[in-house]
Amino acid sequence: MSVRAIVLLSGGLDSTVAAALAREAGREVHAVSFDYGQRHERELASARAVAEALHARSHSVLRVPIGDYGGSALTDAGIAVPTGRDEARMGADIPVTYVPARNIVFLSLALGVAEVKGADEIHIGANALDYSGYPDCRPEFFAAFEEMARLGTKRGVEGKPIHVRVPLQHMTKAGIVREGLRVEAPLALTWSCYQGGEQACGVCDSCLLRLKGFREAGAVDPVKYAR
Amino acid sequence: MSVRAIVLLSGGLDSTVAAALAREAGREVHAVSFDYGQRHERELASARAVAEALHARSHSVLRVPIGDYGGSALTDAGIAVPTGRDEARMGADIPVTYVPARNIVFLSLALGVAEVKGADEIHIGANALDYSGYPDCRPEFFAAFEEMARLGTKRGVEGKPIHVRVPLQHMTKAGIVREGLRVEAPLALTWSCYQGGEQACGVCDSCLLRLKGFREAGAVDPVKYAR
Repeated sequence: MSVRAIVLLSGGLDSTVAAALAREAGREVHAVSFDYGQRHERELASARAVAEALHARSHSVLRVPIGDYGGSALTDAGIAVPTGRDEARMGADIPVTYVPARNIVFLSLALGVAEVKGADEIHIGANALDYSGYPDCRPEFFAAFEEMARLGTKRGVEGKPIHVRVPLQHMTKAGIVREGLRVEAPLALTWSCYQGGEQACGVCDSCLLRLKGFREAGAVDPVKYAR
Repeated sequence: MSVRAIVLLSGGLDSTVAAALAREAGREVHAVSFDYGQRHERELASARAVAEALHARSHSVLRVPIGDYGGSALTDAGIAVPTGRDEARMGADIPVTYVPARNIVFLSLALGVAEVKGADEIHIGANALDYSGYPDCRPEFFAAFEEMARLGTKRGVEGKPIHVRVPLQHMTKAGIVREGLRVEAPLALTWSCYQGGEQACGVCDSCLLRLKGFREAGAVDPVKYAR
């Protein structure tokens, strides 16, 4: 019997590569996506398409009220999404796109789903580029989360703790693109842009990092950009 | 300026006493309740009444999808709520009323609210009776959660970690009743029953524990029971 894994799937590049790697490693993939008052539904549409393309055994879309408490440019219309930032500056500070406790809430819900589905692992596509900026993407955070989960769940108490896997943890964006191409992840279906237009904007932090990743990997991004 | 505290308020006896104690300790109380597909809305109505009676500075009711993934008698209509159990048996096993990752999800969302509202503490009414049965009510779990939160939030990284307070941790139900009476907590407005009738059933685990608590405290429960 293959190991059952919950994979957090946003529909972006990173989580899609993480899901494709889980599948390559023989995991039975159960995708979980979150509808948290994103400014656009584009991301969820990508998540659905990716889950289907990867033949995920199940795909749960959970509505979470993170958007209701505000405090981030990604969920609060009163805070502008930064564009055209100097790449060297990224990662130096916690960005305004930080959503308070986002990964903590996502992993907690994934933990509940994992207990109900009898999954042994939760996979999340956080990586080296994220963890300089977002506290809840750092390796020491994931280790602490796993320990908390061991102590706070039935599974943990029964000696079958649920593990948190961060397969892209030490990869750069270029490394992620290369891995994605190697395992034939459905990169054309992904959506990374912080804005919600018809085409990716090409100027927000997320687009800039993605484009740089493809450039450094010597590959062409299959996604269309407005500029 | 008084210390700002998020208080998890279910509308039951324990969380109501925890909220009243926070207020007595001079905290600026911000109540947070969760709508998670409970079998009844009775609990939330009590939470609203209690928040008002205690003059909470704010009261957020967040809809969380815990009910969507099932796995507990409290959220899954396919699992019966146990009644008339031998009191000596309670706490020996993890009960079927265990909701996978419930407190983990609740505390995670409270953490996000705390960051946005600039709160320094999260208060939760878990206690000695709970933690023998529910893994996510044990002292070692709360300590691990606090550490995870320190590592995974902006506040923590900036050296102003959010603390988790468990004021009833070592109290028995009788002790909680006594504390509630001492601080004049609005006990008549609370709801502890796992069933959702007009009156509390008097036979589910929660009613039995509550009635025993009042009995041992030498007090009369102001709530009406069906039997």
